[in-house]
Amino acid sequence: MAAPVPVMEMDALQQLLLGAFPVEVHGRLGRVVDLVPGRVRMRLDPGPESLRPGNLVSGPTQMGLVDVAAYAVVLAHIGPQPMAVTSSLTINFLRGATLAPVFADAALLKLGRRLATIDVRLWQHDAHTLVAQATAIYALPA
Amino acid sequence: MAAPVPVMEMDALQQLLLGAFPVEVHGRLGRVVDLVPGRVRMRLDPGPESLRPGNLVSGPTQMGLVDVAAYAVVLAHIGPQPMAVTSSLTINFLRGATLAPVFADAALLKLGRRLATIDVRLWQHDAHTLVAQATAIYALPA
Amino acid sequence: MAAPVPVMEMDALQQLLLGAFPVEVHGRLGRVVDLVPGRVRMRLDPGPESLRPGNLVSGPTQMGLVDVAAYAVVLAHIGPQPMAVTSSLTINFLRGATLAPVFADAALLKLGRRLATIDVRLWQHDAHTLVAQATAIYALPA
Amino acid sequence: MAAPVPVMEMDALQQLLLGAFPVEVHGRLGRVVDLVPGRVRMRLDPGPESLRPGNLVSGPTQMGLVDVAAYAVVLAHIGPQPMAVTSSLTINFLRGATLAPVFADAALLKLGRRLATIDVRLWQHDAHTLVAQATAIYALPA
Repeated sequence: MAAPVPVMEMDALQQLLLGAFPVEVHGRLGRVVDLVPGRVRMRLDPGPESLRPGNLVSGPTQMGLVDVAAYAVVLAHIGPQPMAVTSSLTINFLRGATLAPVFADAALLKLGRRLATIDVRLWQHDAHTLVAQATAIYALPA
Repeated sequence: MAAPVPVMEMDALQQLLLGAFPVEVHGRLGRVVDLVPGRVRMRLDPGPESLRPGNLVSGPTQMGLVDVAAYAVVLAHIGPQPMAVTSSLTINFLRGATLAPVFADAALLKLGRRLATIDVRLWQHDAHTLVAQATAIYALPA
Repeated sequence: MAAPVPVMEMDALQQLLLGAFPVEVHGRLGRVVDLVPGRVRMRLDPGPESLRPGNLVSGPTQMGLVDVAAYAVVLAHIGPQPMAVTSSLTINFLRGATLAPVFADAALLKLGRRLATIDVRLWQHDAHTLVAQATAIYALPA
Repeated sequence: MAAPVPVMEMDALQQLLLGAFPVEVHGRLGRVVDLVPGRVRMRLDPGPESLRPGNLVSGPTQMGLVDVAAYAVVLAHIGPQPMAVTSSLTINFLRGATLAPVFADAALLKLGRRLATIDVRLWQHDAHTLVAQATAIYALPA
């Protein structure tokens, strides 16, 4: 199977994300730093409000980044349909994340007519040493 | 099996949660409204910054509440050990949540020596009409 | 929300399950022992071929029972539509299961138009001491 | 991070799997067809007893293969410790699988001291067109 072809450019995708969420959470959205067929890479620079006990980046911060990256890779390939909604999300936390940039690599496992399934991997310094791995399922507008 | 007995009171538990997280996120933590053997109920009053397209309470807001409620029910039964960390979390979003209080009912499925497994159900107006169901696994400090 | 009302009787449901699967696996299907609104209980008597190292009932045996119980509670409430298919399944193994009857309590969390979400709990001697907890999502025929 | 180095050869691994499970299920175990640092590939030739309605390979058959492949990649890297047990497993079914060989590519996401997290992808004719994606967590003997 050839990877699906994006229908949006990186800048338009970033604008779509910013427009879709309230300005108060823009700092937690991260930004799109790469977009290729079937894949999006996002980068988040977590602030001190993202920390949990142990000075680690909190689980909800990571889950938020997973969710946005999955949303981004879906919209990049189906176009601006903000009503795509998360149907389920499973995340495995693998290592503590420190107060440094967190990258999210989101890859479409399947882009179906009704559902999209996305693999998302979070990492900090090295794309092979994962902070977390997640799978998200998005329900697509009919 | 008898349900495990809490070792903390509700007020002390709430103070522990507030102390564990940065003040910037206190508005997203919710508060403990009930504590019985094996179970904690939390309530979150989401603000406009919690919304996603469609004026629905965002997935990350719901995942944050799940994570805090799971953390709360674990600490309520093992005492103030803030270094308990989420190992994995699976959430199924069942219905859109509107801008109204969201309740989280967290129940210990198993409190082991190394891992705790928690069922969390989110609802808004009626405890039987679920907004989301989640399962979290916490790794416990040795 | 009132629990959904079953549209099949227990005997018809059992016959439907037996007819849907090859005779070679009938011994692994278990049988329906209770059916009430929103819920089905199944019982499996595992044989020695179900064991894994440590003389414990194997994970795949447990996952098979979860899948059948979820399928049974869905069909009990939508009628004989064998083409309902599992979309995703998450299982948490909580305690070793020994060579004794395993019960599966399957409860509909949501019966939607396109998806059904089901909570399944496995236990052996006491319904409160769980062997495993699982969540399954079934995609329903259009 | 360099991928972890296997400590077993392919033949010894296959013998270990056969020895660990009852002879009645050997036909459902599949066999190891590739082993490289951090990864194992298995192949299962499903029989008619593996079918579910629609003449598709059943979910439990696929989950069994996922579980064995995850077990195999763990043992390949920690050596013959049959008491490694599945702690949790999440599977997303992406496309129907027909009565043809099913391959399972299992990759270690993290091999920790107490837990191993494994990504498993099932496919039939083309490694890029997935039948299912799964994540398994194994608890390792102390």
